[in-house]
Amino acid sequence: MSTIKYPTAVKSRKVSNIQDFHSGRGMNLENEINESNKFYRAGDYALIYKKPTPVQVVRVDYPERRRAKIVEAYYRTPSTTDYNGVYRGKYIDFEAKETKNKTSFPIYLIHPHQIEHLKKVKFHGGIGFFIIRFTSHNETYLVDAPLLIEKIETIKRESIPYDWFRENGHIIKEGYQPRLQYLKVVDKLYFS
Amino acid sequence: MSTIKYPTAVKSRKVSNIQDFHSGRGMNLENEINESNKFYRAGDYALIYKKPTPVQVVRVDYPERRRAKIVEAYYRTPSTTDYNGVYRGKYIDFEAKETKNKTSFPIYLIHPHQIEHLKKVKFHGGIGFFIIRFTSHNETYLVDAPLLIEKIETIKRESIPYDWFRENGHIIKEGYQPRLQYLKVVDKLYFS
Repeated sequence: MSTIKYPTAVKSRKVSNIQDFHSGRGMNLENEINESNKFYRAGDYALIYKKPTPVQVVRVDYPERRRAKIVEAYYRTPSTTDYNGVYRGKYIDFEAKETKNKTSFPIYLIHPHQIEHLKKVKFHGGIGFFIIRFTSHNETYLVDAPLLIEKIETIKRESIPYDWFRENGHIIKEGYQPRLQYLKVVDKLYFS
Repeated sequence: MSTIKYPTAVKSRKVSNIQDFHSGRGMNLENEINESNKFYRAGDYALIYKKPTPVQVVRVDYPERRRAKIVEAYYRTPSTTDYNGVYRGKYIDFEAKETKNKTSFPIYLIHPHQIEHLKKVKFHGGIGFFIIRFTSHNETYLVDAPLLIEKIETIKRESIPYDWFRENGHIIKEGYQPRLQYLKVVDKLYFS
Protein backbone atom coordinates (compact mmCIF):
# COMPACT_ATOMS: atom_id res chain seq x y z
CA MET A 1 0.00 0.00 0.00
CA SER A 2 1.37 3.34 -0.93
CA THR A 3 0.90 6.41 1.20
CA ILE A 4 -0.62 9.55 -0.14
CA LYS A 5 1.98 12.06 -1.20
CA TYR A 6 1.03 15.59 -0.44
CA PRO A 7 2.59 18.32 -2.47
CA THR A 8 5.45 20.12 -0.84
CA ALA A 9 4.25 22.94 1.35
CA VAL A 10 4.63 26.37 -0.17
CA LYS A 11 4.67 29.41 2.03
CA SER A 12 3.47 32.49 0.22
CA ARG A 13 4.25 35.94 1.47
CA LYS A 14 2.90 39.29 0.48
CA VAL A 15 5.68 41.82 0.23
CA SER A 16 4.74 45.00 2.02
CA ASN A 17 7.96 46.90 1.90
CA ILE A 18 9.02 46.24 -1.63
CA GLN A 19 12.37 47.91 -1.75
CA ASP A 20 13.70 46.40 1.42
CA PHE A 21 12.27 42.99 1.44
CA HIS A 22 14.94 40.90 -0.20
CA SER A 23 17.82 41.85 2.00
CA GLY A 24 15.92 41.02 5.18
CA ARG A 25 18.89 41.75 7.33
CA GLY A 26 19.79 45.38 7.10
CA MET A 27 16.28 46.60 6.51
CA ASN A 28 16.40 49.62 8.76
CA LEU A 29 19.84 50.73 7.74
CA GLU A 30 18.85 50.47 4.09
CA ASN A 31 15.75 52.59 4.66
CA GLU A 32 17.80 55.23 6.43
CA ILE A 33 20.40 55.34 3.68
CA ASN A 34 17.69 55.60 1.03
CA GLU A 35 16.08 58.47 2.90
CA SER A 36 19.41 60.21 3.35
CA ASN A 37 20.20 59.85 -0.36
CA LYS A 38 16.80 61.29 -1.21
CA PHE A 39 17.58 64.28 0.98
CA TYR A 40 21.04 64.69 -0.57
CA ARG A 41 19.55 64.50 -4.09
CA ALA A 42 16.73 66.93 -3.36
CA GLY A 43 19.22 69.50 -2.03
CA ASP A 44 21.64 68.86 -4.91
CA TYR A 45 24.34 67.75 -2.46
CA ALA A 46 25.00 64.48 -4.24
CA LEU A 47 23.47 62.12 -6.79
CA ILE A 48 23.54 58.71 -5.17
CA TYR A 49 21.04 55.88 -5.64
CA LYS A 50 20.54 52.34 -4.49
CA LYS A 51 20.67 49.99 -7.44
CA PRO A 52 17.57 47.86 -7.98
CA THR A 53 17.79 44.29 -6.74
CA PRO A 54 18.50 42.16 -9.82
CA VAL A 55 15.66 39.82 -10.71
CA GLN A 56 15.77 37.01 -13.24
CA VAL A 57 12.45 37.10 -15.04
CA VAL A 58 11.31 33.74 -16.42
CA ARG A 59 7.67 34.23 -17.37
CA VAL A 60 5.52 37.27 -18.05
CA ASP A 61 1.76 37.43 -18.60
CA TYR A 62 0.15 40.08 -20.78
CA PRO A 63 -3.40 40.51 -19.62
CA GLU A 64 -5.36 42.58 -22.13
CA ARG A 65 -5.55 46.27 -21.33
CA ARG A 66 -3.39 45.86 -18.27
CA ARG A 67 0.30 46.11 -17.68
CA ALA A 68 2.63 43.15 -18.04
CA LYS A 69 2.62 40.89 -14.98
CA ILE A 70 5.70 38.92 -14.04
CA VAL A 71 4.51 35.50 -12.84
CA GLU A 72 7.79 33.67 -12.43
CA ALA A 73 11.05 35.27 -11.40
CA TYR A 74 13.95 34.74 -9.00
CA TYR A 75 16.31 36.98 -7.10
CA ARG A 76 19.82 37.01 -8.47
CA THR A 77 23.07 37.70 -6.65
CA PRO A 78 24.16 41.26 -7.40
CA SER A 79 27.58 41.49 -9.04
CA THR A 80 28.37 44.86 -7.52
CA THR A 81 27.59 46.87 -4.41
CA ASP A 82 24.23 48.38 -3.54
CA TYR A 83 24.91 52.10 -3.85
CA ASN A 84 26.71 54.34 -6.29
CA GLY A 85 26.67 57.82 -7.74
CA VAL A 86 28.56 61.07 -7.97
CA TYR A 87 29.59 63.57 -5.29
CA ARG A 88 31.80 66.64 -5.72
CA GLY A 89 32.89 65.33 -9.13
CA LYS A 90 33.98 61.96 -7.78
CA TYR A 91 32.57 58.50 -8.30
CA ILE A 92 31.13 57.12 -5.04
CA ASP A 93 30.47 53.44 -4.40
CA PHE A 94 29.55 51.67 -1.18
CA GLU A 95 27.95 48.72 0.52
CA ALA A 96 26.00 48.77 3.78
CA LYS A 97 25.76 46.00 6.35
CA GLU A 98 24.45 45.71 9.86
CA THR A 99 24.95 43.19 12.62
CA LYS A 100 23.33 42.52 15.99
CA ASN A 101 26.61 41.10 17.23
CA LYS A 102 28.05 43.15 20.12
CA THR A 103 31.69 42.19 20.03
CA SER A 104 32.52 41.64 16.36
CA PHE A 105 31.44 41.94 12.74
CA PRO A 106 31.05 38.60 10.89
CA ILE A 107 33.07 38.69 7.69
CA TYR A 108 30.65 36.46 5.75
CA LEU A 109 28.26 39.43 5.58
CA ILE A 110 30.53 40.92 2.94
CA HIS A 111 30.50 38.90 -0.27
CA PRO A 112 33.67 38.21 -2.28
CA HIS A 113 32.25 39.92 -5.39
CA GLN A 114 31.68 43.08 -3.34
CA ILE A 115 35.31 43.03 -2.24
CA GLU A 116 36.48 42.54 -5.82
CA HIS A 117 34.22 45.32 -7.02
CA LEU A 118 35.41 47.81 -4.39
CA LYS A 119 39.03 47.02 -5.21
CA LYS A 120 38.31 47.97 -8.80
CA VAL A 121 36.55 51.16 -7.72
CA LYS A 122 39.79 52.17 -6.01
CA PHE A 123 41.86 51.14 -9.03
CA HIS A 124 39.79 53.37 -11.32
CA GLY A 125 40.05 56.37 -9.02
CA GLY A 126 36.66 56.19 -7.35
CA ILE A 127 35.82 56.49 -3.67
CA GLY A 128 34.69 53.24 -2.08
CA PHE A 129 33.62 52.54 1.48
CA PHE A 130 31.43 50.45 3.75
CA ILE A 131 28.71 51.63 6.07
CA ILE A 132 28.68 49.21 8.99
CA ARG A 133 26.06 49.35 11.73
CA PHE A 134 26.30 47.68 15.11
CA THR A 135 22.64 47.70 16.05
CA SER A 136 23.31 46.62 19.65
CA HIS A 137 25.55 49.65 20.15
CA ASN A 138 23.30 51.89 18.12
CA GLU A 139 26.38 53.00 16.18
CA THR A 140 27.00 53.33 12.46
CA TYR A 141 30.51 53.53 11.06
CA LEU A 142 31.86 54.58 7.69
CA VAL A 143 35.00 52.58 6.89
CA ASP A 144 37.27 53.14 3.92
CA ALA A 145 36.92 50.11 1.60
CA PRO A 146 40.63 49.41 1.01
CA LEU A 147 41.24 49.53 4.78
CA LEU A 148 38.47 47.08 5.69
CA ILE A 149 39.37 44.82 2.75
CA GLU A 150 42.97 44.64 3.91
CA LYS A 151 41.76 43.70 7.39
CA ILE A 152 39.44 41.01 5.98
CA GLU A 153 42.26 39.54 3.92
CA THR A 154 44.82 39.43 6.72
CA ILE A 155 42.84 38.60 9.83
CA LYS A 156 42.96 34.95 10.88
CA ARG A 157 39.43 34.92 12.25
CA GLU A 158 35.95 34.86 10.75
CA SER A 159 34.98 38.14 12.30
CA ILE A 160 36.48 41.55 12.95
CA PRO A 161 36.40 42.86 16.54
CA TYR A 162 34.08 45.74 17.32
CA ASP A 163 37.06 47.63 18.73
CA TRP A 164 38.72 47.62 15.30
CA PHE A 165 35.79 49.67 13.98
CA ARG A 166 36.05 52.08 16.89
CA GLU A 167 39.68 52.65 15.99
CA ASN A 168 39.51 52.57 12.17
CA GLY A 169 35.97 53.56 11.34
CA HIS A 170 34.30 56.96 11.51
CA ILE A 171 31.06 57.39 13.38
CA ILE A 172 28.23 58.64 11.16
CA LYS A 173 26.15 61.17 13.03
CA GLU A 174 22.43 60.61 12.97
CA GLY A 175 19.95 63.40 12.71
CA TYR A 176 16.56 64.27 11.38
CA GLN A 177 17.49 65.29 7.85
CA PRO A 178 19.46 63.61 6.60
CA ARG A 179 18.99 60.66 8.90
CA LEU A 180 22.56 59.51 8.32
CA GLN A 181 24.98 62.34 7.70
CA TYR A 182 27.49 60.15 5.97
CA LEU A 183 28.64 62.78 3.44
CA LYS A 184 30.18 64.73 6.32
CA VAL A 185 32.47 61.78 6.94
CA VAL A 186 33.16 61.50 3.19
CA ASP A 187 34.15 65.18 3.19
CA LYS A 188 36.57 64.69 6.05
CA LEU A 189 38.00 61.42 4.80
CA TYR A 190 38.36 62.03 1.06
CA PHE A 191 38.18 65.76 0.44
CA SER A 192 40.33 67.40 3.07
CA MET B 1 -30.59 34.25 -22.30
CA SER B 2 -27.20 35.32 -21.28
CA THR B 3 -24.15 34.60 -23.36
CA ILE B 4 -21.21 32.77 -21.91
CA LYS B 5 -18.49 35.10 -20.71
CA TYR B 6 -15.05 33.78 -21.35
CA PRO B 7 -12.25 35.05 -19.17
CA THR B 8 -10.10 37.76 -20.65
CA ALA B 9 -7.37 36.28 -22.77
CA VAL B 10 -3.96 36.30 -21.16
CA LYS B 11 -0.94 35.94 -23.33
CA SER B 12 1.92 34.34 -21.49
CA ARG B 13 5.45 34.60 -22.71
CA LYS B 14 8.58 32.79 -21.70
CA VAL B 15 11.47 35.17 -21.42
CA SER B 16 14.47 33.75 -23.17
CA ASN B 17 16.82 36.67 -23.03
CA ILE B 18 16.31 37.80 -19.49
CA GLN B 19 18.42 40.90 -19.40
CA ASP B 20 17.12 42.43 -22.57
CA PHE B 21 13.54 41.49 -22.59
CA HIS B 22 11.88 44.44 -20.96
CA SER B 23 13.21 47.17 -23.16
CA GLY B 24 12.13 45.35 -26.32
CA ARG B 25 13.28 48.17 -28.49
CA GLY B 26 17.01 48.51 -28.19
CA MET B 27 17.66 44.85 -27.64
CA ASN B 28 20.68 44.56 -29.89
CA LEU B 29 22.26 47.82 -28.87
CA GLU B 30 21.89 46.88 -25.22
CA ASN B 31 23.55 43.52 -25.80
CA GLU B 32 26.45 45.16 -27.57
CA ILE B 33 26.94 47.73 -24.82
CA ASN B 34 26.82 45.01 -22.17
CA GLU B 35 29.43 43.00 -24.05
CA SER B 36 31.62 46.06 -24.48
CA ASN B 37 31.38 46.90 -20.78
CA LYS B 38 32.33 43.33 -19.91
CA PHE B 39 35.39 43.67 -22.12
CA TYR B 40 36.29 47.03 -20.57
CA ARG B 41 35.91 45.58 -17.07
CA ALA B 42 37.92 42.44 -17.80
CA GLY B 43 40.80 44.54 -19.10
CA ASP B 44 40.52 47.05 -16.25
CA TYR B 45 39.81 49.88 -18.69
CA ALA B 46 36.67 50.99 -16.91
CA LEU B 47 34.12 49.84 -14.35
CA ILE B 48 30.74 50.38 -15.97
CA TYR B 49 27.59 48.30 -15.49
CA LYS B 50 24.01 48.30 -16.66
CA LYS B 51 21.70 48.79 -13.70
CA PRO B 52 19.16 46.03 -13.14
CA THR B 53 15.64 46.77 -14.39
CA PRO B 54 13.63 47.78 -11.34
CA VAL B 55 10.90 45.32 -10.47
CA GLN B 56 8.13 45.82 -7.95
CA VAL B 57 7.75 42.52 -6.15
CA VAL B 58 4.24 41.87 -4.78
CA ARG B 59 4.22 38.21 -3.83
CA VAL B 60 6.92 35.64 -3.17
CA ASP B 61 6.55 31.89 -2.61
CA TYR B 62 8.95 29.94 -0.44
CA PRO B 63 8.89 26.35 -1.59
CA GLU B 64 10.67 24.13 0.93
CA ARG B 65 14.28 23.39 0.12
CA ARG B 66 14.19 25.60 -2.95
CA ARG B 67 14.94 29.23 -3.54
CA ALA B 68 12.33 31.94 -3.19
CA LYS B 69 10.10 32.26 -6.23
CA ILE B 70 8.58 35.60 -7.16
CA VAL B 71 5.04 34.90 -8.38
CA GLU B 72 3.68 38.42 -8.78
CA ALA B 73 5.74 41.41 -9.81
CA TYR B 74 5.63 44.35 -12.19
CA TYR B 75 8.18 46.37 -14.08
CA ARG B 76 8.73 49.82 -12.69
CA THR B 77 9.87 52.94 -14.48
CA PRO B 78 13.56 53.51 -13.72
CA SER B 79 14.27 56.86 -12.08
CA THR B 80 17.72 57.15 -13.61
CA THR B 81 19.58 56.08 -16.73
CA ASP B 82 20.60 52.53 -17.60
CA TYR B 83 24.38 52.68 -17.29
CA ASN B 84 26.87 54.15 -14.87
CA GLY B 85 30.30 53.62 -13.42
CA VAL B 86 33.80 55.02 -13.19
CA TYR B 87 36.41 55.68 -15.87
CA ARG B 88 39.76 57.40 -15.42
CA GLY B 89 38.65 58.70 -12.05
CA LYS B 90 35.46 60.25 -13.39
CA TYR B 91 31.83 59.36 -12.87
CA ILE B 92 30.26 58.11 -16.12
CA ASP B 93 26.51 57.99 -16.77
CA PHE B 94 24.62 57.32 -19.96
CA GLU B 95 21.47 56.16 -21.65
CA ALA B 96 21.24 54.21 -24.91
CA LYS B 97 18.44 54.37 -27.48
CA GLU B 98 17.97 53.11 -30.99
CA THR B 99 15.52 53.97 -33.73
CA LYS B 100 14.63 52.44 -37.10
CA ASN B 101 13.69 55.89 -38.33
CA LYS B 102 15.91 57.01 -41.23
CA THR B 103 15.49 60.75 -41.13
CA SER B 104 15.07 61.66 -37.47
CA PHE B 105 15.21 60.54 -33.84
CA PRO B 106 11.87 60.64 -31.99
CA ILE B 107 12.25 62.63 -28.79
CA TYR B 108 9.70 60.56 -26.86
CA LEU B 109 12.29 57.78 -26.70
CA ILE B 110 14.10 59.82 -24.06
CA HIS B 111 12.11 60.08 -20.85
CA PRO B 112 11.88 63.32 -18.84
CA HIS B 113 13.38 61.68 -15.73
CA GLN B 114 16.42 60.66 -17.78
CA ILE B 115 16.89 64.26 -18.89
CA GLU B 116 16.59 65.48 -15.31
CA HIS B 117 19.02 62.85 -14.11
CA LEU B 118 21.64 63.67 -16.74
CA LYS B 119 21.37 67.38 -15.94
CA LYS B 120 22.22 66.53 -12.35
CA VAL B 121 25.13 64.34 -13.44
CA LYS B 122 26.58 67.39 -15.15
CA PHE B 123 25.86 69.59 -12.14
CA HIS B 124 27.79 67.24 -9.84
CA GLY B 125 30.79 67.07 -12.14
CA GLY B 126 30.11 63.73 -13.81
CA ILE B 127 30.29 62.85 -17.50
CA GLY B 128 26.90 62.20 -19.09
CA PHE B 129 26.05 61.22 -22.64
CA PHE B 130 23.66 59.35 -24.90
CA ILE B 131 24.45 56.47 -27.20
CA ILE B 132 22.03 56.78 -30.13
CA ARG B 133 21.78 54.16 -32.86
CA PHE B 134 20.15 54.65 -36.24
CA THR B 135 19.64 51.01 -37.17
CA SER B 136 18.67 51.82 -40.76
CA HIS B 137 21.99 53.61 -41.29
CA ASN B 138 23.89 51.06 -39.24
CA GLU B 139 25.42 53.97 -37.31
CA THR B 140 25.86 54.53 -33.59
CA TYR B 141 26.57 57.99 -32.18
CA LEU B 142 27.79 59.18 -28.84
CA VAL B 143 26.27 62.57 -28.04
CA ASP B 144 27.15 64.74 -25.07
CA ALA B 145 24.12 64.83 -22.76
CA PRO B 146 23.96 68.61 -22.16
CA LEU B 147 24.15 69.18 -25.93
CA LEU B 148 21.32 66.79 -26.82
CA ILE B 149 19.22 67.99 -23.89
CA GLU B 150 19.57 71.59 -25.04
CA LYS B 151 18.43 70.51 -28.51
CA ILE B 152 15.46 68.61 -27.11
CA GLU B 153 14.41 71.61 -25.04
CA THR B 154 14.64 74.15 -27.83
CA ILE B 155 13.52 72.31 -30.96
CA LYS B 156 9.92 72.93 -31.99
CA ARG B 157 9.40 69.45 -33.36
CA GLU B 158 8.84 66.02 -31.85
CA SER B 159 11.97 64.60 -33.41
CA ILE B 160 15.55 65.61 -34.08
CA PRO B 161 16.81 65.34 -37.67
CA TYR B 162 19.33 62.61 -38.44
CA ASP B 163 21.62 65.29 -39.86
CA TRP B 164 21.86 66.94 -36.45
CA PHE B 165 23.49 63.76 -35.11
CA ARG B 166 25.90 63.67 -38.04
CA GLU B 167 26.98 67.18 -37.12
CA ASN B 168 26.89 67.04 -33.32
CA GLY B 169 27.36 63.39 -32.50
CA HIS B 170 30.49 61.26 -32.66
CA ILE B 171 30.46 57.97 -34.53
CA ILE B 172 31.30 54.99 -32.32
CA LYS B 173 33.50 52.57 -34.19
CA GLU B 174 32.41 48.97 -34.11
CA GLY B 175 34.83 46.11 -33.87
CA TYR B 176 35.20 42.65 -32.54
CA GLN B 177 36.36 43.44 -29.02
CA PRO B 178 34.99 45.61 -27.74
CA ARG B 179 31.99 45.55 -30.05
CA LEU B 180 31.36 49.26 -29.45
CA GLN B 181 34.52 51.24 -28.83
CA TYR B 182 32.71 54.05 -27.10
CA LEU B 183 35.47 54.82 -24.59
CA LYS B 184 37.62 56.07 -27.48
CA VAL B 185 35.01 58.75 -28.08
CA VAL B 186 34.85 59.48 -24.35
CA ASP B 187 38.64 59.95 -24.35
CA LYS B 188 38.47 62.40 -27.23
CA LEU B 189 35.47 64.29 -25.97
CA TYR B 190 36.12 64.56 -22.23
CA PHE B 191 39.80 63.86 -21.60
CA SER B 192 41.74 65.76 -24.25
